Amino acid sequence: MSMLSDLCSRIMPADRSTAAAMQARLDHKTKPRRSLGRLEDLACRVAAMRATLDPDVSAKAIVVMGADHGVADEGVSAYPQTVTRQMLLNFAAGGAAINVLARQAHAHVVVVDMGVKEPLPATLDIRARRIGPGTRNFAREPAMTRAQAESALAAGVTMAEEMIRDGVSLIGLGDMGIANTTSASAIAAALSGAAPENATGRGTGIDEAGWRRKVDVIAHALALHRPDPDDPLDVLSKVGGFEIAGLAGVVLAGAAHRTPVMLDGFITGAAALVAVRVAPAAAEYLIASHQSVEAGHRVVLAAMGLTPLLDLDLRLGEGTGAALAMPLVDAALAIAREMATFETAGVSDSGA
Amino acid sequence: MSMLSDLCSRIMPADRSTAAAMQARLDHKTKPRRSLGRLEDLACRVAAMRATLDPDVSAKAIVVMGADHGVADEGVSAYPQTVTRQMLLNFAAGGAAINVLARQAHAHVVVVDMGVKEPLPATLDIRARRIGPGTRNFAREPAMTRAQAESALAAGVTMAEEMIRDGVSLIGLGDMGIANTTSASAIAAALSGAAPENATGRGTGIDEAGWRRKVDVIAHALALHRPDPDDPLDVLSKVGGFEIAGLAGVVLAGAAHRTPVMLDGFITGAAALVAVRVAPAAAEYLIASHQSVEAGHRVVLAAMGLTPLLDLDLRLGEGTGAALAMPLVDAALAIAREMATFETAGVSDSGA
Repeated sequence: MSMLSDLCSRIMPADRSTAAAMQARLDHKTKPRRSLGRLEDLACRVAAMRATLDPDVSAKAIVVMGADHGVADEGVSAYPQTVTRQMLLNFAAGGAAINVLARQAHAHVVVVDMGVKEPLPATLDIRARRIGPGTRNFAREPAMTRAQAESALAAGVTMAEEMIRDGVSLIGLGDMGIANTTSASAIAAALSGAAPENATGRGTGIDEAGWRRKVDVIAHALALHRPDPDDPLDVLSKVGGFEIAGLAGVVLAGAAHRTPVMLDGFITGAAALVAVRVAPAAAEYLIASHQSVEAGHRVVLAAMGLTPLLDLDLRLGEGTGAALAMPLVDAALAIAREMATFETAGVSDSGA
Repeated sequence: MSMLSDLCSRIMPADRSTAAAMQARLDHKTKPRRSLGRLEDLACRVAAMRATLDPDVSAKAIVVMGADHGVADEGVSAYPQTVTRQMLLNFAAGGAAINVLARQAHAHVVVVDMGVKEPLPATLDIRARRIGPGTRNFAREPAMTRAQAESALAAGVTMAEEMIRDGVSLIGLGDMGIANTTSASAIAAALSGAAPENATGRGTGIDEAGWRRKVDVIAHALALHRPDPDDPLDVLSKVGGFEIAGLAGVVLAGAAHRTPVMLDGFITGAAALVAVRVAPAAAEYLIASHQSVEAGHRVVLAAMGLTPLLDLDLRLGEGTGAALAMPLVDAALAIAREMATFETAGVSDSGA
């Protein structure tokens, strides 16, 4: 897949010297050194991603990818599969949580159908990048072919490159797909080596028996398909989802174009882990917005060395956590841009 | 002090029935129930404070109170005392961290001189509510008289009531005062019963020897003055600060006028604890913005039963954490106001 290897060859590490120069700039501001804690780290990281001391991330978009999952047939979700399609219509109509929170963050919402079971009306503002009518049930057979995984990833790359060409400078990720925490848990377990029960949560709200069934489905699927942990596309094709593959493509394109990517919760984290296993330097372009209550989220964030900004017991997805954390990026960069220095403000600097 | 008892008699518990009605409204929105976690709690709490399902907190202000502390003579801070005054000038000029972050949060900054050592030019946009030229050194004598503590508290009440009359619907608290973490730690220890070493941190950045000296100063002062833990004004007068007393007054006025008060870090937390010991129901009008790295902050938040929204290793004060958390309040209320319901959006509700 030469498009993918071409893209990966363009992913450079974030610029450490710019990060150091940003910290030096912050150290001249009228405050005790490092007293803005993780906000300072954020300013340094974004400067390093963009390779400039004056990064502009004002043009924000959240790409919400939706798809259906054959594994929903196993009764692993509290909601019927039709909800995926209903929620994409809700996104298009502007009534979902992500629409509300993206407006608050001044971020545009880009809704993408990566493969909902029943196609959506073409008249709506939903980008159709359908790989198929949902994945197959990975409890019985691979979720998709390797060619489909590659196509979904490529669709994500193309989508992100269009957004970046249109001027987007901060990309948030969002997901929708009934049963997709089952897929994300299987990916997390396969790529990290964690036991399925340590990478599996309650998704939209299943009970104890449902959780046990979900863990069994995942353990059985991993034993059946034996996805190769050193081959992220093999993992993706055997237990992944079309939206997860697409989101992994967005991560790779963001990294290749030095565009920060704000993760949401568990699903987008699993997608990012796939991308990071394809191209490790991609992790340097990721910002972890929040710690989800989903057990597998800790597993994937730890595997990427990321620490989330927020911890608000969120478990919705859609990009809601990404939207909530975006103002912190604006705040961090405003500090670097607008604060007075000890010298200009005439404030005594103790060096502390 | 009849003004204070009059005010306290007007502090009513937040409205539990409105909180329950807000949760019911959120439960009809197109998302799994409680999947927005602490954002939902925040919407319910603010609705209960304002006693309405449509609270408007769009008019935001952060009141930053500054004062000097005689205990700075004991060498408990990394910065010289002149920095208090320099920073108030910086606030007035718009160059400090709080100015930058308040602009991001669309909050007005109100700078108040509660008693800096050397008065500030009257030409500047700094409200002079001076109780004196800094407190006395509480390592040797009480920080202030009881009459001064009452005056400072009353000044805070009046300041908040002016802001509320001008339409402010969300008040953030901020502080500035070299050596004021020493005062806050002494207050926290006196009111909570915590040992001084468990309520004392490194402030703007003292070293191990400085920290040990600071703990000794606090332990000695508490043994010398024996502040009565059941008399918050006694504690305030013996080991408090003018800005801390003023901020406690703001908390009481906010609670009396059903106006949410967003705390910042340790100093504003200690001030709030004084207010809550005067009028326990005041705690229901407080929002804890962030967990500071100062050890005493956990002590005062626990004593008030508050859980902070953010944990970003901040230790600056000025109201910076309050400003950073304000967008979360906007987001929580926007969810309640703007999201579609299962019924209107045609989304299947599993009841999960």
